[in-house]
Amino acid sequence: MIKITLPDGSVKEFANGTTPMDVALSISEGLARNVISASFNGTTIETSTPLTTDGSLVLYTWNNDEGKKAFWHSTSHVMAQALEELYPGIKLTIGPAIDNGFYYDVDFGDKKITDADFKKIEDRVLEISREKHEFKMRSVSKAEALAMYKDNEFKTELIENLEDGTITFCDHATFTDLCRGGHIPNTGIIKAMKILSVAGAYWRGNEKNKQLTRVYGISFPKQKDLTEYLQLLEEAKKRDHRKLGKELELFHFSQKVGQGLPLWLPKGAALRDRLEQFLKKAQKKAGYEQVVTPHIGQKELYVTSGHYAKYGADSFQPIHTPAEGEEFLLKPMNCPHHCEIYNARPWSYKDLPKRYAEFGTVYRYEQSGELHGLTRVRGFTQDDAHIFCTPDQLDAEFKNVIDLVLYVFGSLGFENFTAQVSVRDLDNPDKYIGSVENWEKAENAIISAARDKGLNYVIEPGEAAFYGPKLDFMVKDALGRSWQLGTIQVDYNLPERFELTYKGSDNELHRPVMIHRAPFGSMERFIAILLEHTAGNFPIWLMPEQAIILSLSEKYEKYAEKVLNLLENHEIRALLDNRNETIGKKIREAETQKYPFMLIVGEEEEKNGTISVRRHGDDGKSNTTMTIEAFAALVTEEINKTLKQF
Amino acid sequence: MIKITLPDGSVKEFANGTTPMDVALSISEGLARNVISASFNGTTIETSTPLTTDGSLVLYTWNNDEGKKAFWHSTSHVMAQALEELYPGIKLTIGPAIDNGFYYDVDFGDKKITDADFKKIEDRVLEISREKHEFKMRSVSKAEALAMYKDNEFKTELIENLEDGTITFCDHATFTDLCRGGHIPNTGIIKAMKILSVAGAYWRGNEKNKQLTRVYGISFPKQKDLTEYLQLLEEAKKRDHRKLGKELELFHFSQKVGQGLPLWLPKGAALRDRLEQFLKKAQKKAGYEQVVTPHIGQKELYVTSGHYAKYGADSFQPIHTPAEGEEFLLKPMNCPHHCEIYNARPWSYKDLPKRYAEFGTVYRYEQSGELHGLTRVRGFTQDDAHIFCTPDQLDAEFKNVIDLVLYVFGSLGFENFTAQVSVRDLDNPDKYIGSVENWEKAENAIISAARDKGLNYVIEPGEAAFYGPKLDFMVKDALGRSWQLGTIQVDYNLPERFELTYKGSDNELHRPVMIHRAPFGSMERFIAILLEHTAGNFPIWLMPEQAIILSLSEKYEKYAEKVLNLLENHEIRALLDNRNETIGKKIREAETQKYPFMLIVGEEEEKNGTISVRRHGDDGKSNTTMTIEAFAALVTEEINKTLKQF
Repeated sequence: MIKITLPDGSVKEFANGTTPMDVALSISEGLARNVISASFNGTTIETSTPLTTDGSLVLYTWNNDEGKKAFWHSTSHVMAQALEELYPGIKLTIGPAIDNGFYYDVDFGDKKITDADFKKIEDRVLEISREKHEFKMRSVSKAEALAMYKDNEFKTELIENLEDGTITFCDHATFTDLCRGGHIPNTGIIKAMKILSVAGAYWRGNEKNKQLTRVYGISFPKQKDLTEYLQLLEEAKKRDHRKLGKELELFHFSQKVGQGLPLWLPKGAALRDRLEQFLKKAQKKAGYEQVVTPHIGQKELYVTSGHYAKYGADSFQPIHTPAEGEEFLLKPMNCPHHCEIYNARPWSYKDLPKRYAEFGTVYRYEQSGELHGLTRVRGFTQDDAHIFCTPDQLDAEFKNVIDLVLYVFGSLGFENFTAQVSVRDLDNPDKYIGSVENWEKAENAIISAARDKGLNYVIEPGEAAFYGPKLDFMVKDALGRSWQLGTIQVDYNLPERFELTYKGSDNELHRPVMIHRAPFGSMERFIAILLEHTAGNFPIWLMPEQAIILSLSEKYEKYAEKVLNLLENHEIRALLDNRNETIGKKIREAETQKYPFMLIVGEEEEKNGTISVRRHGDDGKSNTTMTIEAFAALVTEEINKTLKQF
Repeated sequence: MIKITLPDGSVKEFANGTTPMDVALSISEGLARNVISASFNGTTIETSTPLTTDGSLVLYTWNNDEGKKAFWHSTSHVMAQALEELYPGIKLTIGPAIDNGFYYDVDFGDKKITDADFKKIEDRVLEISREKHEFKMRSVSKAEALAMYKDNEFKTELIENLEDGTITFCDHATFTDLCRGGHIPNTGIIKAMKILSVAGAYWRGNEKNKQLTRVYGISFPKQKDLTEYLQLLEEAKKRDHRKLGKELELFHFSQKVGQGLPLWLPKGAALRDRLEQFLKKAQKKAGYEQVVTPHIGQKELYVTSGHYAKYGADSFQPIHTPAEGEEFLLKPMNCPHHCEIYNARPWSYKDLPKRYAEFGTVYRYEQSGELHGLTRVRGFTQDDAHIFCTPDQLDAEFKNVIDLVLYVFGSLGFENFTAQVSVRDLDNPDKYIGSVENWEKAENAIISAARDKGLNYVIEPGEAAFYGPKLDFMVKDALGRSWQLGTIQVDYNLPERFELTYKGSDNELHRPVMIHRAPFGSMERFIAILLEHTAGNFPIWLMPEQAIILSLSEKYEKYAEKVLNLLENHEIRALLDNRNETIGKKIREAETQKYPFMLIVGEEEEKNGTISVRRHGDDGKSNTTMTIEAFAALVTEEINKTLKQF
């Protein structure tokens, strides 16, 4: 008999050789129907693998990431089989599961796969799947493996790097692949499959190697899931911030200026400015002080901070001067500069906390292949701040920062989020800088702040950085995608390195604690996420232009201008389209620009001193005629619905 | 007889050998008394030099820069004589007049000059001066000159670089010096003289050469002038922006971050922000659109703009990347980025002008010896904008920019300024890019704008850049010093280089004209000048903190807080000093920080719901007790006195 520990901590005895599927069946038939993968003592195994020792077993279903991974990895085998059948002579390389589906990198030789072929491949995958083939793992010797792949230089290279005794093949139907394992019980549960795209990919990601064809696919246990996924993809494509950024004329990339270096066009700059003013105002209330620091610093600054030793080689390289042998670096973060501001004068404990905030633009080198719209750039502006406080102030400061982050999320419509608290690995105390006493204080401060503020949080032991514990926010957008936004990080390291001090009530010098925090993270990435979350329909308080006045014809130009002035008095940001164009064209263009309100003025409106209000996205049938005052009240009401109190 | 043309264009005949002093006497005795220098056909000569050909003569008095130069240069001879007498064996090198006085670089050998010696040198200079020695020029051969200075390696080096036949000595009293000429008639008019300071200076400014002692002095024709000058110096020292910047905690330089790279402390950043918001608001009204661009650009961008070819070698050197062989440069100006923003989409003449504004931080390498506080830095933020318009729009655009500049100057208390219009050199038409027609249009636009706006301007032919004409503003500060502030510059070059176009009403593509303009110039330099102009007493509308509430004791804390809230409702920016300190100490500290108003609250004030208002710089005797409303009205009145309408 063996003892199996389940995730709930219960321990059950089973006969030696029992499989995960047997264990599932012993719990319930329902579970057994849904189990598609398993791990034993932390290692992924097959649901059919006999268990022969005591250990911890976890059973996975489609609802677990691990379950999906097994599902997609298994489908990748089936797709490989279909590809080999349809394109005899191709060479398979690797085919892993990814976050959304899987891919297989294939050397098609002189053959070519096109969009037109997708359907027949999908059909063949589903045909094989319906035959309910089981996946069977078997060990092979290195010699046997190499013989099997003697014509495939890619698999040969993989096998050569493996040790004899650790090489396994997976068989299903007529197909065999080199594989480490982790499959679903049989192909029968693959009910829907789609090839999403093909792209070029270098063997092992190295551009010096041969270019292969990467076939991306996804699969589901229900047809409905695939349909929903494809709808989501379609919606995500519509909301792609790169597409919206172009349509709304927010930002632009110029080849001459350089990739990954966005130019903010007037509308985008106005949006950024409004976000900045929104946060600045809240930060002022919360006792932050704005500072301004240069975008470069002497190399010595980053040697002191430790950033140069850690990131120097992979960063933008030092800037030399024509004389004097000086070396500067583009600043990759604002903290060293803020430490030097703190160091500009001596402080007493009575002066703390000091909270220095800066919309600081930083530059970090990323390979061009890694760049993506505004989410992965080479220059970005952090909504950065550093709080210098005494260890006893950490508790209150953490709560204040959480309040600020919740205010930001709430006002911008991110209602679905969780928090992760990263603390020490207690088994490795030597990994961390700072006293045990201070770490305990900081971790307790974070955890009690998270609890008191009602956050939905998990504690992750061992995930803290060597210099301090932290709290990260994970936010779900309107399409259900998760983004990491907002970090609060305790730092015991930089205060040491920059020899920061304050005079305590004991008249002795002490080290302050430093908190790094950025509710948005970066303006660029945040605006990208906000664009995809809202599809460009930002909360009305944020919209640089909340309404556009459309005159029905030139006869109403003067009245339209009067309306503009009246709206200004009500602090409504509007603009005027008095062009000599048809109202239809004006409305279409205003729709594209996503102004929340179109205010149409013609004869009736002028006569009565009103405006005809049409909302963005409406068909015009529910246009409402109202006075400017009523409209101003409507806008205020809408603002109050989204913009929270701070 | 010879014909002498005078500056008013009149031509008079004189006997050959007539001296400038004779000419002055022939005009009036008063003039002859005041003439202290002269130039003939553009070359400086002595007032005693016989004129032997026809030519143009200009006579200079103390009121001309040229007169002062001769006066100070002559005093430098007398000081050199005094130094040789008092420190036998020293070696003289060069002793020119400068903007304010003169200096002499001396190798004192093993002797040393200290502040304690200044008085006896000054006394000796005045003693010699009273003897009314004339300055007499004579030609010497190179051999004779070298013989005279055989023990002085510095003069020897100078003489060796001169051609035989061009070497002259100047004698006065018992002293002789190698000299090109340009002296006052005699030493008798030097009535006041002061040694200002001594400093180290390398021979010929090269740090590889011997270090000499530079003795700075100044002299005047009246004792009163010296007294006033020294008072001005004293006042300038008090107003030195580096001193005020430290006292008011506005900015800080950190050795680690790097010289010439200011860190803006909270109060300085708040001041900057208020200046920026002030200009942004006016610019918005004037139809500008804010953009945001990165602080680096690919080298190619500056190759296209032509900046790299022109300044590359003397600038911060290119930034390399770890891979991909890319090269970036810190941006030395924002125009190339704004051209790329213009190029982000096609434009029609109906869309123009486009006015892109950015508070753009740029980086330019300066040698460390050239750096000075905020007036000469390595990184600074320009209040930059570029207007892209049709040639026909230049006229209106220039007027709009002048309006904006006048609004800025007016609101910041710069009332004393002149303008310089730089136009083509008509004799060298090939020097300039752009059509003659466009140049004429642009020059006429600038001149008519300057005239119509009532500017006090001069036209300087030949001073235009090769790419376009411009208008510069010269501003006098409260101490009478001149600063160049505000430039408006037409550019035909960058539109060519970046191939900018718009579709004209003729449906053809045309090149827009570009205007560069910056009313402040740079935030750093402007704030330095504003600090020295106002001694830190900025206009109240600009003050980040307009008032400070001082509670008489902790009993009045609550009332003080109430006052703060009430002031906020009146949109008065105030802060609160509720510390447990004496009112005397609170007032002293508030005085140092130059808050315009101190609002003292104690028993009386709480009882009556009032505040006791003390102005910055007052002795407290004219404190006035008033209601918050009355104070708010007072502040509004003060604001309206300075902040102009735009």
